[in-house]
Amino acid sequence: MDDALKAHVRTHPDAAQQLAERVAERMFANDRASRALGMRIERVAPGRAELTMTVTDSMLNGHGICHGGYIFLLADSTFAFACNSYNRNTVAQGCSIDYLAPARKGDVLRARGAERSRTGRTGVYDIEVTNGTSTVALFRGKSYRIDGTIVDELDEA
Amino acid sequence: MDDALKAHVRTHPDAAQQLAERVAERMFANDRASRALGMRIERVAPGRAELTMTVTDSMLNGHGICHGGYIFLLADSTFAFACNSYNRNTVAQGCSIDYLAPARKGDVLRARGAERSRTGRTGVYDIEVTNGTSTVALFRGKSYRIDGTIVDELDEA
Amino acid sequence: MDDALKAHVRTHPDAAQQLAERVAERMFANDRASRALGMRIERVAPGRAELTMTVTDSMLNGHGICHGGYIFLLADSTFAFACNSYNRNTVAQGCSIDYLAPARKGDVLRARGAERSRTGRTGVYDIEVTNGTSTVALFRGKSYRIDGTIVDELDEA
Amino acid sequence: MDDALKAHVRTHPDAAQQLAERVAERMFANDRASRALGMRIERVAPGRAELTMTVTDSMLNGHGICHGGYIFLLADSTFAFACNSYNRNTVAQGCSIDYLAPARKGDVLRARGAERSRTGRTGVYDIEVTNGTSTVALFRGKSYRIDGTIVDELDEA
Repeated sequence: MDDALKAHVRTHPDAAQQLAERVAERMFANDRASRALGMRIERVAPGRAELTMTVTDSMLNGHGICHGGYIFLLADSTFAFACNSYNRNTVAQGCSIDYLAPARKGDVLRARGAERSRTGRTGVYDIEVTNGTSTVALFRGKSYRIDGTIVDELDEA
Repeated sequence: MDDALKAHVRTHPDAAQQLAERVAERMFANDRASRALGMRIERVAPGRAELTMTVTDSMLNGHGICHGGYIFLLADSTFAFACNSYNRNTVAQGCSIDYLAPARKGDVLRARGAERSRTGRTGVYDIEVTNGTSTVALFRGKSYRIDGTIVDELDEA
Repeated sequence: MDDALKAHVRTHPDAAQQLAERVAERMFANDRASRALGMRIERVAPGRAELTMTVTDSMLNGHGICHGGYIFLLADSTFAFACNSYNRNTVAQGCSIDYLAPARKGDVLRARGAERSRTGRTGVYDIEVTNGTSTVALFRGKSYRIDGTIVDELDEA
Repeated sequence: MDDALKAHVRTHPDAAQQLAERVAERMFANDRASRALGMRIERVAPGRAELTMTVTDSMLNGHGICHGGYIFLLADSTFAFACNSYNRNTVAQGCSIDYLAPARKGDVLRARGAERSRTGRTGVYDIEVTNGTSTVALFRGKSYRIDGTIVDELDEA
């Protein structure tokens, strides 16, 4: 955040939260991929996000369980909402995922993501995916801030 | 491979290739996720696979470029076809991806995967995703062999 | 843990802690690599460990800062003490590290590790390395349990 | 490389190789960590490096095999020589390693590293560590180019 925004956030305790929500709303409206999969944003906050997605028939692989790529997709979208929450355009550099338990048709997957670090242009975010009974996967994303914003900050006044 | 299968493959040079192709055919028939995304298997061989997928509207994220999760999905399916090619049920333990260039609507993504190691039950596979002009992503998958086979080897005779 | 040990731990609330400490003591006595680098075990508990190490002259790279490999070594040893704390021989399958800030000569590096998951033979552990003012690195280790124990459990009686 | 250097390299086919060698010589002279471990640079080239290191007593862990951290250190140094070979100061952002086979006392470990991609300020390098009979580990490093050079390019004339 630039200094003016930092000062604004300090003196308006809810400003950072409101900005995170406005950013998420705009991003989600434009994000056909996440909407087409039935993802829902449950919560966002500065540096954090929580999304849910239900495993459908078309997400099953040859073993009849959820294709790992769809678990990754949910975690990756959660990561994107968390790392863009400061209204600075931020992209994924790289991600890793460890699979702990299978997800099955009808499971409501819940991904919770939080920032672990943010220094300079880069950040690290940890996302945990659960299915109600087990942790399904642990995901770590590395972000890189590029130029531009998601929403116009003048709107904020 | 058990000793009998190894011996069979040694004395029948095409047996391993034919087995890889039968496995891929069976897996793909059951893999709704990969088929629903329009993936095509271009080539399989023992420890190797090559798949293509065209970036469609519903794969675009809020920046108007292909959601990284779909690039991951293509790489992950390629990994699955490569690591199951010996007809031993094999699952992903974990994967990592590094994004090098964006993919855009209409791009035909091509993922080529090859085995880097296989020792005991675990393997490491590297998959490169290109879009015709650039390398879009590098993916590394770690596999774990479980019990069971994909096709019945008695069919092979 | 086998059932007898689980029952023992349930009825003797300190048993798991005492076992973790005995394992750490034995491992450290045999671990020339960690001792030669001046590492100290500050704390162990079931699934957790905390180690410190001071950055010396011989750990500096060509830029005059601590070679990333030594930061990794401290995190990796912390991971080993955490994942072996149940007295089941456990080895590293793979690890990843993200560097957040440089470490300098004289810095006392502190690595704190905790288990994120343990299912079947595999586990995931997160280790954070700090130097008193900053987080220096985030490390994630994947463990695999093999046969055997570190200390004899009959000693415990 | 800037345009003048690119042109120079194009018209002087050996210039890039000579530059890589001069950079490696300078880096190694200043790299106490790598020298203290007995590492040797066997070969460097633009984007590539090959180093060896013998496993000594003080690298053994509690299981009597080489501590994974020392295998990482060798791979990490190889990565550093490869990614700095263009004479642009370049640091590690993050690394991952997968262990395939143990290394033992007296083993001569050989790490061969090559660039997989370089776009903008970031690069991806793959390093394979062998011990003469087996692949011991696969390492992937992500680099980030910062300001400055290792040697003065005017020296080159």
